[in-house]
Amino acid sequence: MSFISPLGERFALLTDLYQLTMAACYFEAEMAEEATFSFFIRKYPPNRGYFVAAGVEEALNYLETLRFAEDDLAYLESTRLFQRKFLDFLKTVRFTGDVHALPEGSIFFKDEPVIEVSAPVIEAQLVETFLINAVSLQTLIASKAARSFHVAQGRPLIDFGLRRTQGTDAGLKAARASYLAGFLGTSNVLAGKLYGLPIFGTMAHSYITSFPKEIEAFRTFAQVFPTITTLLIDTYDNAAGARKAVQVAREMEARGERLRYVRLDSGDIAAISREVRQILDDAGLKYVKILASGGFDEFKMARVLEAGGQVDSFAVGTKMGVSADAPYFDCAYKLVKYGNRPVMKLSTGKVTLVDKKQVYRFYDDQGRFHRDVIALREEALPGGAPLLKKVMEQGRLLGPLPTLKESRDYFISQFGLLPEPYKALQDPPSYPVTWSAGLTALQARVEREILEREIK
Amino acid sequence: MSFISPLGERFALLTDLYQLTMAACYFEAEMAEEATFSFFIRKYPPNRGYFVAAGVEEALNYLETLRFAEDDLAYLESTRLFQRKFLDFLKTVRFTGDVHALPEGSIFFKDEPVIEVSAPVIEAQLVETFLINAVSLQTLIASKAARSFHVAQGRPLIDFGLRRTQGTDAGLKAARASYLAGFLGTSNVLAGKLYGLPIFGTMAHSYITSFPKEIEAFRTFAQVFPTITTLLIDTYDNAAGARKAVQVAREMEARGERLRYVRLDSGDIAAISREVRQILDDAGLKYVKILASGGFDEFKMARVLEAGGQVDSFAVGTKMGVSADAPYFDCAYKLVKYGNRPVMKLSTGKVTLVDKKQVYRFYDDQGRFHRDVIALREEALPGGAPLLKKVMEQGRLLGPLPTLKESRDYFISQFGLLPEPYKALQDPPSYPVTWSAGLTALQARVEREILEREIK
Repeated sequence: MSFISPLGERFALLTDLYQLTMAACYFEAEMAEEATFSFFIRKYPPNRGYFVAAGVEEALNYLETLRFAEDDLAYLESTRLFQRKFLDFLKTVRFTGDVHALPEGSIFFKDEPVIEVSAPVIEAQLVETFLINAVSLQTLIASKAARSFHVAQGRPLIDFGLRRTQGTDAGLKAARASYLAGFLGTSNVLAGKLYGLPIFGTMAHSYITSFPKEIEAFRTFAQVFPTITTLLIDTYDNAAGARKAVQVAREMEARGERLRYVRLDSGDIAAISREVRQILDDAGLKYVKILASGGFDEFKMARVLEAGGQVDSFAVGTKMGVSADAPYFDCAYKLVKYGNRPVMKLSTGKVTLVDKKQVYRFYDDQGRFHRDVIALREEALPGGAPLLKKVMEQGRLLGPLPTLKESRDYFISQFGLLPEPYKALQDPPSYPVTWSAGLTALQARVEREILEREIK
Repeated sequence: MSFISPLGERFALLTDLYQLTMAACYFEAEMAEEATFSFFIRKYPPNRGYFVAAGVEEALNYLETLRFAEDDLAYLESTRLFQRKFLDFLKTVRFTGDVHALPEGSIFFKDEPVIEVSAPVIEAQLVETFLINAVSLQTLIASKAARSFHVAQGRPLIDFGLRRTQGTDAGLKAARASYLAGFLGTSNVLAGKLYGLPIFGTMAHSYITSFPKEIEAFRTFAQVFPTITTLLIDTYDNAAGARKAVQVAREMEARGERLRYVRLDSGDIAAISREVRQILDDAGLKYVKILASGGFDEFKMARVLEAGGQVDSFAVGTKMGVSADAPYFDCAYKLVKYGNRPVMKLSTGKVTLVDKKQVYRFYDDQGRFHRDVIALREEALPGGAPLLKKVMEQGRLLGPLPTLKESRDYFISQFGLLPEPYKALQDPPSYPVTWSAGLTALQARVEREILEREIK
C-alpha cells in the first residue's frame, strides 16, 4: 500500500509529472548516488520575521509508507510515457534515505533548512512535491496562528476556519497547525477526531432565524446544552440580544446552571463588547464571558484590544485558515549535494546554500534567542545548539515522534525565548542569521567552479 | 457508508461542531419543517468583476452520499455532548432535499445564489460547512484561472501549482478548476488520474544540477522522452542554456526527432525570451517553442506579453493555485426561508436576500450578457433566461451531470458572451445586477416585521 493518510488516501501519484520523468532519466542513466535535498523558505512574506515548523510529521509518515500501488502503475502505463522496465522498477521503490529535520513547533528563520533528505537520487527527487506541499501548508498556518497567539496574551483562541479553508485537507491541517501554535481548539469535528483536539461550537444566525423569536432559539439551546451554552446575540441587534441573553441566563440560574458566553459576530466589536459587558455586569452576570468572531486575525484582534474591547476569547477563522495576507511561502526543496559533489543553481535571485547543513542557535545570557548560524553539517560551532535532528535512517524513524501536545508545549516554550521585537505585527526587524566560515568558503568555491564549467 | 470522495475519504464529520449542536436543538424542539439555504458571494475581491461556478458537482456528490458511520457516531458519543437518542437519529440521517444550482462553468456575479438547498432543517443545516468549503474553493480557483485564460489569448496554460497549494485537496481541486476555466492541463499526476486531465511535465533544476554537466542532463532527457522533450535552460545561464539546447536539438534532428520546448523559469522573461527566440531562430529552430514559468499569474503574463515577450505557453503555479491576491471569498450559506416564513438576519453590513430565488439573465442584441435580475423563484421575468437549474429532488440527482469536458466547453462559450470591459484585470466595472419588484417588496416587508418583533 502507498501512503496512508489519516483519511486513507494514497498519495504516491500526488506529485508533479516531472518527478516521474526525471526519475525515468536517472533510472535510464543508472544514476543512483546519494542526493541531498534541502527544504527552506527563501523570503519573509510582508510583516513576517519568524516561522513555526509544522507538517514535518506528515512528511515523515509519507516517506515511511511511500509505495506505488497497482492502479497507480496502471494509470502511468496508460499515459504511454514510460517504459515497462521503469514501471517495474517503480513498483519496488521505497524510501530508504536519511532525514534531518527541525522538531514540530520549532521557530526558524529564512534560508534555514527545515528538512534535509539524503537518499538515492530517484527517491529523494520523487518525494519533492508532497514534502513541499505538506510542510509549507502547516508551517504557513502555524506561523500565522502564532501571531494571534501572541496578540491574545493568554485569551483562549478557537479555530473557526474550516468553511473557507482551501479544501478539506487544509481545513484539517489548519486546525492541527493552529493548535500546535497555541490555539485552544477548533470547531472542526473531524480534526477533533483525527488529532484529538478539543472541539468547540456555538450556533449560527440560521439557527436563530429558523425560530419564530430569537429568545426561543436561546432557550432551546440552553436546555439542550446547559453546560456549554454560548449565545450568538448579533442576529438582529446586539443590545437587544444581550438583554434576551440576560433573561435566559437568569432562567438558567434558576435551574442551577450558568450561561458561559455570549458571542459577537459583527459591527464595531470594541464598542459593542463594552456595551454588552455593561449590560451583563448590570444584571449581575460578571461570570458570563464574551466571545468575538467575524473576520478576526492578529491585526483586528490587536485593534479591538487596543480600543478597549472587552473580549475574553476569540474565534479566528478565514484569515488565519488561508493565511490571508501571505497565502504561500517562497519555499524550495533544492538539490544541495549529489554524490560527493556539492551543487547549486545560479538562476537570478535564487541562490541555494550548498551541501549538507546544520543550523546552530546561540542564546543570550537570559537564555533568549540571540543569533543563528547556518553551517556545514560536519562543522562544530562551540556554544551553538544544533537545531536539526536526525529523525530517519534508511527509511525508518529513529524513534517515536513527539505527540501533538508535546510539540505544542515545545512551541510555547520556544516562543517565550524569542525576543519581543521579532514578534512585532508589522515590519519586524530581521533576526540575525549568518553563514559559517566553512559554508561561506564552499559556497564561493562551488559558484566559481560552475561559472567556469557552464558559462562561456 | 458516508461520503466517498474520489480518494475514499468519509466527510460526514468534516463540519463545524455547531452544525451538530444546532441539529440536536432542532431535534429536541421537533423542528422538521423545510428550510431553504442560499449560497452566494457577498463581495467582489479587489480587481474581480465576475465569478466562475465550480465545485457544485462535488457538493452534490456529498449530498447524495451523506451518512454518519459507526466510528463517526462513536467519536461523537465520546465527546459526551450528545444524548443517545440524538445519535441514534443521526445514524438515520440522509439528505432528502431539493437543490437548485448553477451548472459548473457558469459565470455569475455577487449576491446571486450559486446553490439553493431546500430540505428538512436539520439536513439543510448539517451540510453547510462542507458545501461552502467545496464550492468556495473551486469557484475561487476557477475565477482566478479564467483571468489567465483571458490574458493568454489562446496560448496553452498548464497548472503547476501543486507543491504550494494549501494542502492535497486544494492541489487536486486547483488542477480540476483551472482546467474547467480553460487551462490545457496540469502537472498533477493524481489529478490526471482522478479527473482524466491531460498531464504535462518538464524537468527541475535539481535534475540539471545532479548531472556533472548541464548538456548531459539535456541529452539524457531527450533520449528517454524524445516526443515530449522540454529543456529547462535557466539553471546556470539562459543564453548558455539555449545554445546547449540548440546542440541537443540538432542531435535530435539527426535521429529524426524534434525538441518541443525550452523552458524559462527566472529573470526578466520578456527580454530573455526574445534573446532565446533569436538564438533558436538563428539556429533554424523556429519550431522549438518557449514555455515560461516562475511566479506567473494573469498580471505577470500581461506584463510579459505587453513587453514583447516571445512566449508560446505559460505554466501557472502558486499564485493561481492559492488565488494569491484573493485567497478567499466573503461567501455565505444563509437561511432564507423556514417553513412558510421568509427570513433574514440584520447584522451590520450583512443583509441576506430572503426566500427561494431565481436569477434571470438578459442578453443584448448580439447575444452578450447585458444584465441580471435576482427574483423570487415563482416570479416570471419575460425575456430573461433562468440560470439556476433544479438538479436534485428528494436527495437524488435528476439526471447525469455534465462531464468536466462539457463544463469546460460551457465555460468557454459563456466567457465569450461576457463583454470585454468586465474582464479587465484591474478595477473592472460592476456588471448590473438588480432585484425584481417581488423580491424588493418582500425584502422590505420582512425587515419591517423583524424590527417590530425583535428590537425594542
